[in-house]
Amino acid sequence: MKRTLCSDISRHQGEEIRICGWVQATRSLGGIAFVIVRDRTGTSQAVFEGKAELPPQQSVVEVSGMVRAEKRAPGGCEIVGTCITELSRAEPALPLDIMGKTQSNVEVMLDHRVLALRNPRVSAALRVQSELAAAFRDFLRSEGFTEVFTPKIVATGTEGGAELFEVKYFERQAYLAQSPQLYKQMLVGSGLERVFEVGPVFRAEEHNTSRHINQFTSLDLEMGFIESVEDVMRLEERLLAYALPRVAKACACEIEMAGARVPQPGSIPRLDIEEAREAARIGLGHEMPPGNLSPEGEKAVSEHILETTGQEFVFVTGYPVTSRPFYAMPDPTDPSRTKSFDLLFRGLEVTTGGQRIHDHEMLLRNLSAWGLDPAKFEGYLEVFRFGMPPHGGLAIGAERLTTRLLGLGNVREACTFPRDRTRLQP
Amino acid sequence: MKRTLCSDISRHQGEEIRICGWVQATRSLGGIAFVIVRDRTGTSQAVFEGKAELPPQQSVVEVSGMVRAEKRAPGGCEIVGTCITELSRAEPALPLDIMGKTQSNVEVMLDHRVLALRNPRVSAALRVQSELAAAFRDFLRSEGFTEVFTPKIVATGTEGGAELFEVKYFERQAYLAQSPQLYKQMLVGSGLERVFEVGPVFRAEEHNTSRHINQFTSLDLEMGFIESVEDVMRLEERLLAYALPRVAKACACEIEMAGARVPQPGSIPRLDIEEAREAARIGLGHEMPPGNLSPEGEKAVSEHILETTGQEFVFVTGYPVTSRPFYAMPDPTDPSRTKSFDLLFRGLEVTTGGQRIHDHEMLLRNLSAWGLDPAKFEGYLEVFRFGMPPHGGLAIGAERLTTRLLGLGNVREACTFPRDRTRLQP
Repeated sequence: MKRTLCSDISRHQGEEIRICGWVQATRSLGGIAFVIVRDRTGTSQAVFEGKAELPPQQSVVEVSGMVRAEKRAPGGCEIVGTCITELSRAEPALPLDIMGKTQSNVEVMLDHRVLALRNPRVSAALRVQSELAAAFRDFLRSEGFTEVFTPKIVATGTEGGAELFEVKYFERQAYLAQSPQLYKQMLVGSGLERVFEVGPVFRAEEHNTSRHINQFTSLDLEMGFIESVEDVMRLEERLLAYALPRVAKACACEIEMAGARVPQPGSIPRLDIEEAREAARIGLGHEMPPGNLSPEGEKAVSEHILETTGQEFVFVTGYPVTSRPFYAMPDPTDPSRTKSFDLLFRGLEVTTGGQRIHDHEMLLRNLSAWGLDPAKFEGYLEVFRFGMPPHGGLAIGAERLTTRLLGLGNVREACTFPRDRTRLQP
Repeated sequence: MKRTLCSDISRHQGEEIRICGWVQATRSLGGIAFVIVRDRTGTSQAVFEGKAELPPQQSVVEVSGMVRAEKRAPGGCEIVGTCITELSRAEPALPLDIMGKTQSNVEVMLDHRVLALRNPRVSAALRVQSELAAAFRDFLRSEGFTEVFTPKIVATGTEGGAELFEVKYFERQAYLAQSPQLYKQMLVGSGLERVFEVGPVFRAEEHNTSRHINQFTSLDLEMGFIESVEDVMRLEERLLAYALPRVAKACACEIEMAGARVPQPGSIPRLDIEEAREAARIGLGHEMPPGNLSPEGEKAVSEHILETTGQEFVFVTGYPVTSRPFYAMPDPTDPSRTKSFDLLFRGLEVTTGGQRIHDHEMLLRNLSAWGLDPAKFEGYLEVFRFGMPPHGGLAIGAERLTTRLLGLGNVREACTFPRDRTRLQP
C-alpha cells in the first residue's frame, strides 16, 4: 500500500491508506484510543477501538486504516486504524516540551535543536529560508546570472586580518573566507559578468548577541557593466518584489503560524547616511558613531522611514570611505564618500552592497591606504590589469532576512545548527 | 541607449545600439579596423572606418554603432561602429594565450584562472555546473525536499579523525566538515523528512591527483521513510533522467564546444561489489583491494558495463561493512555487507549513497566497533533516542559529475578556484 501524506488523506475517503510519521499526541477514552501523527505535511488523527498500549510521544510509526469524514479531526477526516507499527520507539522522558505552549528558553531549544524543530512553528524559519534561497536563485538565473562555488579556505582575509578563523592547511596557515567578495568580483572579470553564490561565510566575531552568528548563509551577487550603484539597488528592489510575494504564497502556513506579515516592497526609499544619522540622533536623543549607525540607530531609522513613508525597507547610502572596505568605489563628486549602501528591514541591516573599484591603480592606492600588502592580493589584482568592467554587487544575510520576515527574536532561530561565540554543538 | 547583448544584435538590424564586453581580437585592413567584442552571450564584430588606434586585447570596451547584415560576421550581423570607449585598458603582455588553439598547461591555466576562463571553452564547465545544481534543486523541491544549510565548523569529524582540516574556533579546537552527513540525517529526524544541501565539503586529502581536490561542491540529499536502499537508487535514476536532458538543452553550446555527449539514463544497471571486483580483475588481470575497487577498477567496471549493456552509468552495491562508515545500514541477510552503493559514470565514482542505521543501540555498537567515542557524537545520537525514521541518502560530487559529462581530464577544470595539496591561490 503506497504511503499517503497527512495533507492528502481527505482525498482518500473510504479508502484503505497508510501514513508514516511521528506520534505527536495520544489519548485514550473509554476503550477508544486516538493517535495524532505528524509528517512533513501536517497531522492526521487515527482512531483505534479496544487498543490498550500506545507508543510513547515522538515515536515514529506507520498507521494503516480506512479514511472517513470526521469534522473534529485535522483536515476534516480521520483514519479508522487497523494497525499501528512502531518503526522507532521514543524514550518516554523528552528533554523538552516540544509542542508546549510555553516555549523553552533559547539555549535549551538550541541544545536539543532537532527535537525543538519537531514543532512546525520552530521549523517554519527553515522552510521560509529554503524558499527565499530558491527565489533568490530563480530570479537571478532569469537575469542571466551564473551560480558559482568559490573557495572557503583562503590565503588572505577579504578585508585584512580581522575576524578571521585560522585553518591549518597542511603545512600552511590559511583562513576561512569571510565572504566570497573578492572571488565574485574576479568571476565577473572572468567573462561570466553576472554571478551569484549561496553559501556559508565565517566571521570570528567576539560579539555574542541575538543578531550575530559565526557562520551564516550569504546570498551574494555581483554584476558587471553597471552604470552606477543605482543599478545594484534597483536589482535588489526587483529581486525583493519577486521573492517576497513568492515566499508569502509558498509559505503561507509558516507565515500565519509566526503571526507575521510579508511586505510587498516596490520602490524603496533612499536615505543618505548623514540624514540617517540625524534621524537616529533625533529619535534616540544621542549621537551616532561617525559615518555609521549603531544597532539602535538602525531601529530608529527604520521607525522614522515607516512613519514618514509607510515603508519597512530603506536604503542607507553614501557611507564614508572610512566605514567601508578598500574595494568600495569612492564617489567622484565627494571622494570622502563611497557609492555604497546598506538595506535596513524592520530595524536590521539585511544587505550590504555597492559599486566596486575597477581601476587597478586606484585599488593599489587603497590597499596601501588601508595598510594591506598588495603582494597578498596578487591573485585578486591580476584581473584588474587585464580588463575589468565597472561592477557592483551585494550580499544578503539569509538568516537575518528570515528573522525579520517572521518577527523572530534571535537570528539563531533562522539557522539549522547555529555557531556562536560559545556554541559548537550540536 | 540601452545595452544590447552580442547574442541579440541580429534582432536590431538598422538600429543604433551599444554593446559592452572584452576585446577578443582586433585587425586593421587598409583603413578599416575590425574589433571582435565578447560578452557573456557570445561575440560581435564591429567595423570602424579610418580608425588608427585600437585597444589592446582583453580590454573592456563599449562600442556603439548601427547594426547591418554581414554574412561573414558572427551571428550574420556586424556593427558599423561610430564610437569605441575603453572602460578598462588591458596591459599588452598577457600571461597566457587565452584564445590560443594550443592550450597552456594546467598549472599555468590555474595560476591565471580568471584569464583562462575568458575562453568560453574553459568557462563552459562552470556554466554546466550552475545548470546541474539548479536541476538538482528543482527536482528535489518538486519531490518535497527542503533545502538546508548546515554547519561547516564542527566539533568532531563525521567519520573519525582522518582527513580533517583543523580550525581554531576561539579557544577551542574544531574541524571543517567533511560532509553534511550527520546533520542531514538529524534534519530528516527533525521532521523535515526530506532535505538537501548544495555546499562545500572539505577533505584534507594528501592525494594530489586529477580526481582529487580538497574542497568540493557536494550535492547532498537525505530522505526519511524509505523501504530500502532501492528507494534511494531509484530517486537518483529519476534525478538524472530529469537533470541530464535539462543540462543538454540549456548548455547545448557548452556541450558542443567540449565535443561531449550527454547520456539519457533510464534504469541504471546494478552490480554487486563482488561481481564488480571480479569484472575488474578479469579486465585488468590483477586483484582489486578487498571489498572495493581501485580507480583503474572503476574504469574497468564501467567498460565492462558499457560493453555488456550499452550503459554509461552503473550502481555498484553491497559494499562490505569494513569499506563503509559506522552509520551504514548492515544487510540483515548478510551482516558483513551494507545496504550501500556507489554510482560510477564513465569510469569515475560520482555518487556515494546508502541506507543508514536508524536504531540507537545498533549505532552505539557500531561507534564502539569503529573505535569512536559515543560521547563525541551526543548531539547526533539524541535524535535516534526520540523517534528516527528509516532513512537513506546520497552525495554527488558536482565537479566529478561535470568533469565526466564534458570529458575533461582534470576535476580542477570543473572548479572555479581549486584547492589542492599544494594550491591555495588564487
